[in-house]
Amino acid sequence: MKEYKDITELLGICYPIVQGGMAWVSDFHLAAAVSAGGGLGLIAAASAPADWVRGQIHALRKITDKPFGVNIMLMSPFADEIMQVVVSEKVPIVATGAGNPSKYMDMLKEAGTIVIPVVASSTLAKRVERAGADAVVAEGSEAGGHIGETTTMNLVPQVVDAVSIPVIAAGGIADGRGAAAAFLLGAKGVQVGTRFIVAKEANVAQPYKDRVIAAGDNDTVVTGRFTGHPVRSLKNKLMREILSQEKKDMSLEEFETLMIGTLRKAVVEGDADYGSLMSGQSAGLVTKEQPAAEIIRDIAEGMKAVYRSKAAYFGD
Amino acid sequence: MKEYKDITELLGICYPIVQGGMAWVSDFHLAAAVSAGGGLGLIAAASAPADWVRGQIHALRKITDKPFGVNIMLMSPFADEIMQVVVSEKVPIVATGAGNPSKYMDMLKEAGTIVIPVVASSTLAKRVERAGADAVVAEGSEAGGHIGETTTMNLVPQVVDAVSIPVIAAGGIADGRGAAAAFLLGAKGVQVGTRFIVAKEANVAQPYKDRVIAAGDNDTVVTGRFTGHPVRSLKNKLMREILSQEKKDMSLEEFETLMIGTLRKAVVEGDADYGSLMSGQSAGLVTKEQPAAEIIRDIAEGMKAVYRSKAAYFGD
Repeated sequence: MKEYKDITELLGICYPIVQGGMAWVSDFHLAAAVSAGGGLGLIAAASAPADWVRGQIHALRKITDKPFGVNIMLMSPFADEIMQVVVSEKVPIVATGAGNPSKYMDMLKEAGTIVIPVVASSTLAKRVERAGADAVVAEGSEAGGHIGETTTMNLVPQVVDAVSIPVIAAGGIADGRGAAAAFLLGAKGVQVGTRFIVAKEANVAQPYKDRVIAAGDNDTVVTGRFTGHPVRSLKNKLMREILSQEKKDMSLEEFETLMIGTLRKAVVEGDADYGSLMSGQSAGLVTKEQPAAEIIRDIAEGMKAVYRSKAAYFGD
Repeated sequence: MKEYKDITELLGICYPIVQGGMAWVSDFHLAAAVSAGGGLGLIAAASAPADWVRGQIHALRKITDKPFGVNIMLMSPFADEIMQVVVSEKVPIVATGAGNPSKYMDMLKEAGTIVIPVVASSTLAKRVERAGADAVVAEGSEAGGHIGETTTMNLVPQVVDAVSIPVIAAGGIADGRGAAAAFLLGAKGVQVGTRFIVAKEANVAQPYKDRVIAAGDNDTVVTGRFTGHPVRSLKNKLMREILSQEKKDMSLEEFETLMIGTLRKAVVEGDADYGSLMSGQSAGLVTKEQPAAEIIRDIAEGMKAVYRSKAAYFGD
């Protein structure tokens, strides 16, 4: 069992808040703003080539000298090369998605990289801990983008019980209430995705941001369950079309044809009707565009205030 | 705006813990044990006839004189008669499921009944508040049985923001951690279902209880999404068969034929393979059979302990 380290100490950050690695959304603009604001910014490598990732790292370092990380999607065809890039660039923190990063663990640990896999089950959490992970992000099914089945409320305590490394809670956390709740479930930090889509510094087309801000509590939908890789997005024309096709026994090829390029369409082109507006259920809690640093302070101060407001109820 | 009332004062109970109204499971044995233990026990009327409900009320009152309630499923063919029964029997609290109880509100209020609808969206929460509800149970999608789409982590704060009556959080809460987290999300009480399935007093066949105790974090499954009335249960032979049929474009009739009588089969006959083992994701947190009163104390003391354990982190 590893010695317990507070997540801020482990990552060298001020606030225990990590920005989610969101494909297309989490580029150096957002990651730098989050890291400069005292959280942990992550560049999402997604399916981008290694050179793009290197360029992003350089661009981020022109803005801030604070710790940051790269989120590497293990199913990317460029994963091997990107691992080489993060090691040669001495990126302090690597988060991984879509699997177990064990085959890269030796090279990352040798380079002194802190490794934080994102997991959706306590089984995978135990596996990555054995492989040498420094912490895990336990991401509940209310999150946006690719999701698992277990919700934050259930996943976090079960992962906390299963491993002895620190657990960062993700999925559904957008304000001080959710963050405070996550800590009481046993998390040592929180990862926030959806609320950072509307950060001023996020390089996201305005119509996408506007839809996130307008969303209520029942405005997301999950598509692609039949493919084994479900994705959560805001309801729009594209998602309604996909859902209706899914009911008619859609093939994997038809699904992929309809989805291809739609995230870029949303983030870059601002097509809110036929783009994939990936978003968590917490969109309903997101009410305005703000600088990333302000979002971080609001969550950090909010969670303290929420905690303290219950002292009379739970105190002696 | 109503004056704020703590949920224990409103309901006349010791601990802010409500037992979920689970069809077949929540009969007078369980409800009486929960009420006698200081929580709020609920008899689930489900689709049972009014005379059965009256008998249950009488049987409960032979065991305890503590406040209790009846959960009335509004889609039941016997809903009208059951409403008459709870009024004539002066049942102090009525919880309602599957809709808006507005058409019964006048008769219930006249009888002095406290009315607590279960809701899965802030839209319905606002509607039942306008109709005169005294509180709402906001039930997240991690719950067992019939479920909505929004998780507890997101539903609770959004319902809290939408209404001024007290909100009781449900879905995924099985221990002090979940209960404490729910309070930080803004809830004034919690409803617990799954953990009470394994209460000693619950009249549930042992194989069903054993499966709940054995379940891990990824052992529930949702069937019937295509019907518009999704249901969460533990994975077993029946659910695997239904899921595989659903992929082959199952009809509503075929689905209903496979499901009919399966909850009774699980609860009464103890058929863990071909019965509906309705259960929330929190089954993964349930580890043993205990008397209901012990479960209540464990959650109530657990939430205080969890809260206090974070004082050094969040305190001044």
